[in-house]
Parts: sequence; C-alpha cells; structure tokens
Amino acid sequence: MKKVYLDNNATTMVDPEAYEAMQPFFCEKYGNPNSLHDYGSQISPYLRKAMDQLYDGLGAGDMDDIVITSCATESNNWVLKGIYFDKIVTGEKNHIITTSVEHPAVGHTCSFLERLGVKVTRLDVNSDGLINPDDLKNAIDDKTALVSIMWANNETGAIFPIKELAGIAHERGVLFHTDAVQAVGKIKVNVIDAGVDFLSFSAHKFHGPKGVGGLYIKNSQKLTPLLHGGEHMGGRRSGTLNVPYIVAMGKALDIANKFLTFEDSHVRRLRDKLEDALLEIPDVTVVGKREHRTPNTILASIKGVEGEAMLWDLNKAGIAASTGSACASETLESNPIMEAIGASDDLAHTALRLSLSRFNTEEEIDYAIEEIKKAVVRLRSISSSFAYAPKGYKSGL
Amino acid sequence: MKKVYLDNNATTMVDPEAYEAMQPFFCEKYGNPNSLHDYGSQISPYLRKAMDQLYDGLGAGDMDDIVITSCATESNNWVLKGIYFDKIVTGEKNHIITTSVEHPAVGHTCSFLERLGVKVTRLDVNSDGLINPDDLKNAIDDKTALVSIMWANNETGAIFPIKELAGIAHERGVLFHTDAVQAVGKIKVNVIDAGVDFLSFSAHKFHGPKGVGGLYIKNSQKLTPLLHGGEHMGGRRSGTLNVPYIVAMGKALDIANKFLTFEDSHVRRLRDKLEDALLEIPDVTVVGKREHRTPNTILASIKGVEGEAMLWDLNKAGIAASTGSACASETLESNPIMEAIGASDDLAHTALRLSLSRFNTEEEIDYAIEEIKKAVVRLRSISSSFAYAPKGYKSGL
Ligand SMILES: Cc1ncc(COP(=O)(O)O)c(C=O)c1O
Ligand SMILES: Cc1ncc(COP(=O)(O)O)c(C=O)c1O
Repeated sequence: MKKVYLDNNATTMVDPEAYEAMQPFFCEKYGNPNSLHDYGSQISPYLRKAMDQLYDGLGAGDMDDIVITSCATESNNWVLKGIYFDKIVTGEKNHIITTSVEHPAVGHTCSFLERLGVKVTRLDVNSDGLINPDDLKNAIDDKTALVSIMWANNETGAIFPIKELAGIAHERGVLFHTDAVQAVGKIKVNVIDAGVDFLSFSAHKFHGPKGVGGLYIKNSQKLTPLLHGGEHMGGRRSGTLNVPYIVAMGKALDIANKFLTFEDSHVRRLRDKLEDALLEIPDVTVVGKREHRTPNTILASIKGVEGEAMLWDLNKAGIAASTGSACASETLESNPIMEAIGASDDLAHTALRLSLSRFNTEEEIDYAIEEIKKAVVRLRSISSSFAYAPKGYKSGL
Repeated sequence: MKKVYLDNNATTMVDPEAYEAMQPFFCEKYGNPNSLHDYGSQISPYLRKAMDQLYDGLGAGDMDDIVITSCATESNNWVLKGIYFDKIVTGEKNHIITTSVEHPAVGHTCSFLERLGVKVTRLDVNSDGLINPDDLKNAIDDKTALVSIMWANNETGAIFPIKELAGIAHERGVLFHTDAVQAVGKIKVNVIDAGVDFLSFSAHKFHGPKGVGGLYIKNSQKLTPLLHGGEHMGGRRSGTLNVPYIVAMGKALDIANKFLTFEDSHVRRLRDKLEDALLEIPDVTVVGKREHRTPNTILASIKGVEGEAMLWDLNKAGIAASTGSACASETLESNPIMEAIGASDDLAHTALRLSLSRFNTEEEIDYAIEEIKKAVVRLRSISSSFAYAPKGYKSGL
C-alpha cells in the first residue's frame, strides 16, 4: 500500500542528516557538557555549533539569548508565567493580550492565568483566520504586560503580520511574544527584523526530534525561570542538557532554512495543486487566502463529510491527515479554528487539514487527490448531514 | 590512552539496548501518537510497553499516574510549584519542609517560593549527610503543605529512610515528595512500599537518554500542571510526546532493575575496593557509612588536594570524576554537601566524587586507584594547604 504523510503540522519525520548528526551523543560522547573532564568538554564544540545554527537560523544577535527548552509548550508556558511573576504578581501590570486561535499551549496557559486573576483579552479573527491590527491597538492599555500572538496558525497556516503587531505593542512599551512553531522552517523567520521580544519554536515541526525546542529572548531580557535548579543555560533553564537533540535541532533548522526557497516553490506548488483539486469538488471551502498562508497548509471544509470519517477513509488508503481539531486531542471535537472564524457547528465538524513537507512528491499528491475524491463521494453518499444533491454532484465528481 | 568514566552520578552512557530500542522512532515511526491515523496509532503499543516498564520498574499501581516530563528538574519544579498553586496560593497552607542537601532543582525552587512568601524549613544533616527523622517530626505544623526529601544524595550517595520519613509526613496528613533521581536504577525503589505521594526520576541517571524523566503521582492526586496546553498525558503535562526517549527510558529502567543485584554485588565490590584504596592514603576521609549509601558512590575529601586540581590530573590520565560541586556548575565552587555536613572551608574544596556504573571493570578501578595515588602525591607535593608531612606519607604512598 502507498503511504502518504500529509500531517506535517502535527509532527514531521526527522531529517536523515539531523538523525545522523545526533547519533554519537548517546553511547559514545555521552558526557554531561557541564563536567570538568574530557567527556564533558569534548561536547562543547558540537553544542556551540548547534547554538550557532540556531542563532543564524533565527537571525538572533549576540546580545540575545536562545534558551533550549523541552518543547514549544514549555517555551510558551515559560513566557506567560514568567511575565506573570515579573510584572503581574508585582502589581505593576495585570493584562495579557492574545488571539482566539492560539495553540492550547498559549490558550490554556492564559486560561490558567485568568483563574489567578489576570485579565486576558483574546482578539477575534475574521473568516480568513486573521486579526485586525487595529483591534490590538485598541486592546492595549497601561496595564498590559504582554502581547502573545502566533506567527502562523497550526490549523489554517494563516500568517500573522508579526512585525506590524510587534511594532504596535512596542509603541505602547509592551513586550511582544510570538509562538512561531508553525512558521520556523516553513517561511523566513528573522527575530531582529520582526522585532519580537520572545519567540517559541519546536524542533519536531521542522524535521528535528520531538521533545526539544527553544525560546528566543531579545537582549537577554529578564524572565523568571519556569524550571529552577542548576546553572544550565546561564541559569535561565535548568536541567541536564539534551545534547543529541540540541545537535539535531541545530542541524534540522540549518537544513530547513536551506530548503526555504524549495518550500516556497515546490511545496507550495504541490499544495496549490492539491488545493485546486479540492476546490473543484462542490461545496468545499478552504480557510484563508493562499498568499497569507504557510506554503504547506490547507484547512478545508467539505460539506456533509464528518472530519473523522474522512480521516478514516484516507487512513485506509495509507494517507495521514488531520481534522485539525488539535495536535493534542484524541477526542472527536469540532475544529476550534473553524469555530473561531465563525463557521457553523455543522461545518466545524467537516474540517480536513492537509499539511505537506519537502519530502512529499508529486506522485503522492496525485494519489491523495484521487483518494480524497473517492472518499468524498462515498461519505457524502451515506451522509445524513449532506441530504441534498448539489448541482453536478452525482455526475460531476 | 585508557578511558575510565567515574562520573555516573552526573550522567551515564545510554545502554546500547535502550539506544537500539529508540532508533525506529526518528525517521520511520515518527507519527504523533495522538494522531488519528496509522502513523500515530502504530506508536501506541510501544508507548504502552514503555509505560508498563516504568510502572513495573517503580512498582506503581493502576490507580497511580506516571507522567513523562523532560527531566527531573521539571518533575521537581512541577511538584513544588503545583503544590504552591494548589495549597498555598489558596491560603490553606504556607510551609514546605526539605533538607539542606537537596539538588538545586529542589533547593533553588524552594528559594524561589520563599521569595513569594512561602515558609521553607531546610532540615540539617549530620556528618554522614543524613537527617534526624525527629527533626522532621518537629518541623511539621498545621500549615505544612509538603515534605520534599531526596531518596539518595547525588554527592554522597547517602540513602534517606524514605518509608519512615513519608510515614512521619502522613501521620500529620502532609504530602510527601521524593527526588529519587540517584536511587532509581541503583537500589530498589518501590513507590507503593515507600508510600510516597510524588517521586521524580530522570532517565539519564540510569543509562537512558538526557532530556526525559517523569513524575510518579500516587492515586492520580490533583496537581496544577507546570506545562499547560494540549491534552497530552491526560492533560497533566502538555507537549508532543518524545516517543523515542520514552521508549528508551522504559527499556533502560527495565534493564537497570534487572541489574540491581549486580549493582549491589559487582558495582559495590568495585566501589569498596576503590574506597579502601583511597582510605589507605593518609588524611583521606569519605562521607557517610557505606551501608547507608548507594553502591556506586564515594565522596572523598583528600586533605591538601584542591578538587579541581585533582580532576585535572585524573582527566589527563583519561579518568572522569567530579568535585561534586554540582552536576550543573562550571564554576570552581566548594562542595555544597561538604559545607552542609559541617566540613571546614578547607576540606570543602578537597572533595572528589567518584561514581561508578555497571559498565566499569575491575581493570578500570585498578587503573584509577593507581592514578589517584599518583595525583595525590604530586598535588600534595605542590600544595600550599598541605604544608606538613603526615606520618608515613612520603614513604607509605
Ligand atoms: C502553533 C503551535 N504552538 C505550539 C505547539 C506545541 O508544540 P510542542 O508540542 O512541541 O510543545 C504546536 C504543536 O503542537 C503548535 O502547532
Ligand atoms: C538528585 C538529583 N535531582 C535532580 C537532578 C536533575 O536531573 P536533570 O538534570 O535530569 O533534570 C539531578 C542531576 O542532575 C540529581 O542528581
């Protein structure tokens, strides 16, 4: 059976070169890099190289910190809770602004802070899944401690105008954080150019391993640690360093950035081909304009076709996709982004997220198109919520 | 040149079998285990097996949770800060009891909570590095939220009577946490028998990879998450699962437990041989009674020999050891445990920690003994703080 992986926004295959790069650090060069002997010190050049790859890859400056974390969830929690301890517990500020379409690592952390008494404003998105920058302007007040807005949305691929939004926050002297998990490795991300204060990333979204990520911190800005302990990472994030994964993450980012043009041409072309084919099917819509999305992502709504049923059919054909209901949830939920953009409850259950990577081939996309079309016909023919025959449906497909 | 690794309390080599076990999950079986397709679901049996190995390995029951974290530092931070939000912010309690010899992941987290207004009692240790259980009894009051005491000390190997201490806490209705990082895989650890409520562990201390660990939670006790986000790990710890490392950690614990008898015989015998040889050198002391220590650890004080100078000499001979000043610090500090047990400032700078593993051979230990003796002679001959010739020193060594 063919195997086609179109769930790269959930997680990716580790790039074979990144895989190779980390191998020596398990059974051979296994010392703790902080140790005062060769087992430790022999690690330093590799760590330094990986850190250089991260600094270069994100465009960070010498005065900035990139702190390794265990994932973007940790990075996001760290920023939000760090700011809580730095600026809110102290009584200085009491307000955080975010959007209604953040990943739960931001969304649920904000809810937690809300329960502690923090005021949280969640900016609404339009039908393209984007916010109105004026809404941010209007939401900021003297008590705003932080604005946290994702760079690209995990469900729709919608790209937020981070530079503009960070500028708005800074005009009012407010710190700006962006969850760039779905942007890094897919589109150009330059922290200095964007002017963000904090940026979260996670290796497994750009063909690095799961369980390692980082937080960029502009100008080594103070931020109360989330993990207190030993003096790792200059005391900013304690815990013995995960050497193999740091090495792999550096390598993976380096490769991903080299492939950015390829991503923007090849991957985008395949994505557009797939999207065009989907849109030929009656009563299919795709969320957001192509030019405002990461080149690899499609969030489609296929009227009358329950998302999970679709996944099931595709899976039987060897195709991995997602309802986009959450890269985290095992339950059958409606897609939260579909809800946020104001889709009807019906449509919110018909979401299909297809997310490509540079490893997808044209042949795979052709196969996926064929199988999706077959599945739509089959599922609509048995669908209770698609109890009508749209023009051209029976014949046209 | 010979290579002898005697710094296993800092970190260990990944066991080759654990290494093998994780290989398929990088480039082949790389799906997100929460995904609703075969790339995801094919992971389940491996994860389940790893979790079974952890439950079996720690003796946890079906009603208990073992939650995967990125390291013991995270586990320790989680317990302490979780309890802070659950019981202290609420006004119910305001007091945490710990010891003066905890790892910084507990010690510094307590200091952080202290700055937030929490009362922290740090129980003193005696010259063996152990506390008096009566001191715990006396320290508990109606406002005590948690007792956090390590199972085995990272510097001395001193084993705390966890069952007795947990019993004392429970008599007063107080929750009990133990940082068992240095116990798991070295001595028998059974959470039910010990009766602890929370237990932290870290894979890289028992020949698993660095950057993965866990927290045992008795009876699925409520604990405010440290990492909010997606519904991973039943909503207890968010972040995409680090599948390869979880698989490797399960395997590593399984193997380590199978080697416990070997640890207690072979490793202990080599340790004792090394310790006996050290004690033959005049003015050498070792902290703590052997029978109260993990079988692999020696914290020696070699009068007149600066710890770092010793490391340097040993390193030139291919031997990796530690001053034990912290598995985290790159600075030249005195050993905090030596200070805690009341050693003079002089002696606190002469600490040498030697920590073995099941991979050490008798030949390696013989070589280490020889090289340590040589180093002592050389360093004492140039030592300003060893300005006397003890009886038998020049001739006897
Ligand atoms: C936008 C976004 N933020 C954060 C995360 C969390 O990443 P991780 O699971 O690696 O912590 C994800 C993916 O899961 C994501 O898509
Ligand atoms: C007793 C103890 N607790 C906690 C830790 C922290 O473990 P990790 O660095 O894996 O978080 C260590 C070792 O570094 C330790 O020895």
